Amino acid sequence: MSTNVFAYAAPAAHAPLERTTIPRRTVGEHDVLIEIAYAGICHSDIHQARDGWGEGIFPMVPGHEIAGVVTETGPGVTRHKVGDRVGVGCFVDSCRACDYCRQGLEQYCVQGMTGTYNALDRNGEPTYGGYSTHIVVDENYTVRIPDGLALDVAAPLLCAGVTLYSPLVHWKAGPGKNVAIVGLGGLGHMGVKIAHALGAEVTVLSQSLRKQEDGLRLGADHFHATSDPETFEKLAGTFDLIVSTVSAPLDLGAYLSLLKTDGAMVNVGAPEEPVSLNLFSVIGGRKTLAGSMIGSIAETQDMLDFCAEHGLGADIELIRADQINEAYERVLKSDVRYRFVIDAATI
Amino acid sequence: MSTNVFAYAAPAAHAPLERTTIPRRTVGEHDVLIEIAYAGICHSDIHQARDGWGEGIFPMVPGHEIAGVVTETGPGVTRHKVGDRVGVGCFVDSCRACDYCRQGLEQYCVQGMTGTYNALDRNGEPTYGGYSTHIVVDENYTVRIPDGLALDVAAPLLCAGVTLYSPLVHWKAGPGKNVAIVGLGGLGHMGVKIAHALGAEVTVLSQSLRKQEDGLRLGADHFHATSDPETFEKLAGTFDLIVSTVSAPLDLGAYLSLLKTDGAMVNVGAPEEPVSLNLFSVIGGRKTLAGSMIGSIAETQDMLDFCAEHGLGADIELIRADQINEAYERVLKSDVRYRFVIDAATI
Repeated sequence: MSTNVFAYAAPAAHAPLERTTIPRRTVGEHDVLIEIAYAGICHSDIHQARDGWGEGIFPMVPGHEIAGVVTETGPGVTRHKVGDRVGVGCFVDSCRACDYCRQGLEQYCVQGMTGTYNALDRNGEPTYGGYSTHIVVDENYTVRIPDGLALDVAAPLLCAGVTLYSPLVHWKAGPGKNVAIVGLGGLGHMGVKIAHALGAEVTVLSQSLRKQEDGLRLGADHFHATSDPETFEKLAGTFDLIVSTVSAPLDLGAYLSLLKTDGAMVNVGAPEEPVSLNLFSVIGGRKTLAGSMIGSIAETQDMLDFCAEHGLGADIELIRADQINEAYERVLKSDVRYRFVIDAATI
Repeated sequence: MSTNVFAYAAPAAHAPLERTTIPRRTVGEHDVLIEIAYAGICHSDIHQARDGWGEGIFPMVPGHEIAGVVTETGPGVTRHKVGDRVGVGCFVDSCRACDYCRQGLEQYCVQGMTGTYNALDRNGEPTYGGYSTHIVVDENYTVRIPDGLALDVAAPLLCAGVTLYSPLVHWKAGPGKNVAIVGLGGLGHMGVKIAHALGAEVTVLSQSLRKQEDGLRLGADHFHATSDPETFEKLAGTFDLIVSTVSAPLDLGAYLSLLKTDGAMVNVGAPEEPVSLNLFSVIGGRKTLAGSMIGSIAETQDMLDFCAEHGLGADIELIRADQINEAYERVLKSDVRYRFVIDAATI
């Protein structure tokens, strides 16, 4: 049983997104029906809609930064009631049985999490994302958006926010810690805000000084251009933690040289191609090169509570649904400060 | 002021080692004079004597796995007295002022530790290593060899032992942890012994099954050949910690796939050339690729105490000094189980 709702979908790889209808399942025992208010545009939406990550499932409705309001609850639902402000992030299910699911690390589910879109759910039905008026999601894969946080600036937190919050907290960014954020885009700008709110000393490492003023306004203490070779000399051995948000291939050895002994460089963005690494870059100084992938449901809730407490939302440009294709072009040119958010009322 | 002592030195890069005399400084305020009993042969001795790591200082007396007895103490010495059994490892000094020296992480001294050989000391004089009858060392860079530990099997612990002990303890190998040691040579065999004694479940990953019997005898629970592609399928997602002791370029992605979520692969050996890495190998599963370099003075002492308590020494082949060049050839062919140790009485 299902109901059709309006959505913006890519009918095929590389095709522009267009308005259409898609089925949403009938609300089940533990499901909530969410009326979507806002959906953020993540760079990975574009990758997938254009089939950059292998075989896509089309038609594809992207969107995994979803903020909305519960309008119906299944009979077994205990976490939410009608009217609750809720969010949905990058996944809507997981096996719930493996060690990682049981530890509350659903994003690392051994069977693979069920993506919010471009995936098959546990019944083999395709999932459709947030560029849509409604979505039906199991209550265990939703989070509560605190009252203090407006829904439009909250939407991008569901991916960009938690993707940075999780490694910053896991690798203990906080007072006395020197943290660098590489790249000041959708992910990076949330990294600066969150690292600053956690009490760390924050440096932005950006290709140029073009966004310096923004970076400092967002909470950075320092801003350096990585196109300037002097940056790497000046900052050698400076950081406890570097979080790289970029998907360009970096000179890892150069970035690792910026770490203190026992420091960690954590990649949340990455190029599709392999990069070159001399292992002596990690041996001297007992350094860590690591990665991190979004965050768990519990971490996402912690992140939203933290952001509400500190008054942090994303810096957004609100668009109408009919501007999605144009917004995609601008994202590819890094011409957005710092996240496009679709007003779902215009879908 | 100095005294000449006998030693085996490489007079020039690639030249065979030969018996000669070298100067040792007069015992200073905080120095001890050590009569060397045994010196281990580390693979890196060969690298350096043959100038594999850049500009060597010649004549070069290798040897940084030194066990001996104190025969004279400077007036300010408080840690040792004449007759004490002591060891000297990879370094004999450091700046003592930087953050790392003050934290007792002398091996990561920002000015660089002073190597036991092939280095210049703080006065600009070349240092000479353990293939010698005597050495003069500041007491703060020596360790006590517990009575339960024979000096010959203790010597290799000063480098090979602590190089494995440090990352195993730092990354919390112990009961309930699944630990793999890559490579069963001088380093790897100590890794197996120490990881087993720490209570971990230990797997050896070796190119072939040739050393399987040895591996199990040394304390491994499992032994797998990495030349068999099935090994990587069977062991996917198995390990909390992998310590790689090999200097061959590994397929890092394949090894990282053997880690659990939050697992770490720590390199204590490394190829001189860069290796290729797809960063998605660490992003999925929040994995760590790290390195570790020998260990501090305090860790070296802890390691010796731990080895004495658990009855662990290196598996050695004792040789005369006039066999050093032949031993080098055999090390290069991996034809040693598992460490050559020079009887310094034959120098």
